[in-house]
Amino acid sequence: MTGVNRQIRLARRPVGEVRPEDWTHTEEPVPVPGEGEFLGRTRYVSLDPAMRGWLDDRPSYLPPVGLGEVMRAGSVVEVLASDHPEFRVGDLVVGAFGVQEYAVSDGKGAFRIDPALAAPSTYLGALGMPGMTAYFGLLEVGALKEGETVVVSGAAGAVGTMVGQIARLKGCRVVGIAGGPEKCAVLTGELGFDAAIDYRTEDVRKALRAHAPDGIDVYFDNVGGPVLDAALTRLAMHARVVLCGAISQYNTEGAVQGPSNYLALLVRRARMEGFVVFDYARRYPEAAAELAGWIGDGRIKVKEHLVEGTVADFPATLGMLFRGENTGKLVLRLT
Amino acid sequence: MTGVNRQIRLARRPVGEVRPEDWTHTEEPVPVPGEGEFLGRTRYVSLDPAMRGWLDDRPSYLPPVGLGEVMRAGSVVEVLASDHPEFRVGDLVVGAFGVQEYAVSDGKGAFRIDPALAAPSTYLGALGMPGMTAYFGLLEVGALKEGETVVVSGAAGAVGTMVGQIARLKGCRVVGIAGGPEKCAVLTGELGFDAAIDYRTEDVRKALRAHAPDGIDVYFDNVGGPVLDAALTRLAMHARVVLCGAISQYNTEGAVQGPSNYLALLVRRARMEGFVVFDYARRYPEAAAELAGWIGDGRIKVKEHLVEGTVADFPATLGMLFRGENTGKLVLRLT
Repeated sequence: MTGVNRQIRLARRPVGEVRPEDWTHTEEPVPVPGEGEFLGRTRYVSLDPAMRGWLDDRPSYLPPVGLGEVMRAGSVVEVLASDHPEFRVGDLVVGAFGVQEYAVSDGKGAFRIDPALAAPSTYLGALGMPGMTAYFGLLEVGALKEGETVVVSGAAGAVGTMVGQIARLKGCRVVGIAGGPEKCAVLTGELGFDAAIDYRTEDVRKALRAHAPDGIDVYFDNVGGPVLDAALTRLAMHARVVLCGAISQYNTEGAVQGPSNYLALLVRRARMEGFVVFDYARRYPEAAAELAGWIGDGRIKVKEHLVEGTVADFPATLGMLFRGENTGKLVLRLT
Repeated sequence: MTGVNRQIRLARRPVGEVRPEDWTHTEEPVPVPGEGEFLGRTRYVSLDPAMRGWLDDRPSYLPPVGLGEVMRAGSVVEVLASDHPEFRVGDLVVGAFGVQEYAVSDGKGAFRIDPALAAPSTYLGALGMPGMTAYFGLLEVGALKEGETVVVSGAAGAVGTMVGQIARLKGCRVVGIAGGPEKCAVLTGELGFDAAIDYRTEDVRKALRAHAPDGIDVYFDNVGGPVLDAALTRLAMHARVVLCGAISQYNTEGAVQGPSNYLALLVRRARMEGFVVFDYARRYPEAAAELAGWIGDGRIKVKEHLVEGTVADFPATLGMLFRGENTGKLVLRLT
């Protein structure tokens, strides 16, 4: 195997919004797999809001991406050569192979996918981290019960679309909060949400009063900021606020906006709880099997936003997430 | 029974700090108990940070005190006349009789106290709401386990002194946060805390790093504001933040300061949970019996700050709470 491996590396730590100058585009020879390793060619690269956090040099649930390192990313690769007993040439494999055209792996944290069961990109979304995040966040951290009212922010995103659909399947009333009429129409149309709130044009607090008249039992938060504050004012007794992310705050240069209405947790005897999906890794197969079943019988619709391009398009594609330009899971398909 | 019943009534809703003009001092004839009622003369009036919240016209766990109404307060009265089968003349009774010299009651929510077991004022503190709040907040909401590290803010207050001592009894490392060297000396001296942090002169975040080197397992918050934010930066994995109050925020005229570091809950897989002690009312006897035992054998020290005066001193005495002038439970003893 000869040729060039194009890569995206972190050049400097972004301040606020991520800029093109924060990245370097490098080229290296395609690596050669050693004993027990395989070489994969990247087909799909995942883009996730959490990536913004990985760029900051502060303690978190994963170490920050180092300066000069290939950007961390989940991806689907096709095996081109293998000395690994479990992965054969032609296999499609999902793992954290980074933003590069080729990767060598010893197979740790990598899983062969079944393209007959679902499209490869779906293993980065509904059957990947976002799907696992929605599943365990809602059912375990949120301790969802049938008949409850669930509100999810970032509802048209990779996690949000899954949260709402799983909640519907569990017999709950589901309200999604998203930006723009098109996204809201997808939520209440195709995805079967009971109601959608456009936070850009509506008064979220008032809209929640209308659409969740008995209060919110589970609020699944992907955005933080004013939307979280509005949701806190409408909690039902013993509500659970599931902290999944805070995309509205990831690019702020100053302090994060804390939830001014947090004392509602006291009045409503409610809790706010954070989680990291990796803690549920041992149970991914169980969740993936159940989700695949629901996708297979059409009860869950997979929403994906595929951008075609090369690894050089990664920085611009990442920006789409923070401008809310994607509906469903954002994936870069390398062509 | 003839004579005058002096009362403190809410004249207007305070904006920010409570001012003398927010109250009216009224006089009425001493009321006459009807069928099944008793008449009590007030001996001790409880002063609680929660009172500030009761003055605001906003939905909470109790209805606001109405304009023109006698101020709501827990108190201990001595029965002067009774047609109630359970309360006899001479009995000392604790209940929510309000800030007035005399009260008539049908006995609902009133309990006869045993002055042989503890001083009457203690039924407003260590054996009253603050004691119950500490007990259930720490053991139930905080789900405290032996060997954990507990940090409590407002540590020298009625609730904080109890939280820290109960945690010590349960085999935990206890760090208290309080204002001023005298209070800190009481915590680490008389009350047996492992460490105390003076938030007025110390960098709380740094001090927590020193005194809770393995992180905080249970943070019991009575104050909110910057102290809450500092504690959030030092949470251990799976920490529990117990929201009991936010005295630093009760007098703010603008928005409450939300905890800017709330995303630490996500990174540390932690939860923040509010509670209202009334929900545990059925279990008060169990808690009171256990606390009385600990007090009786000297393992818990009762800290009380008694102010002698008349009901007319209630407004000024209440102000002491918000300036942090009390150590232990603040009680107005009517002379």
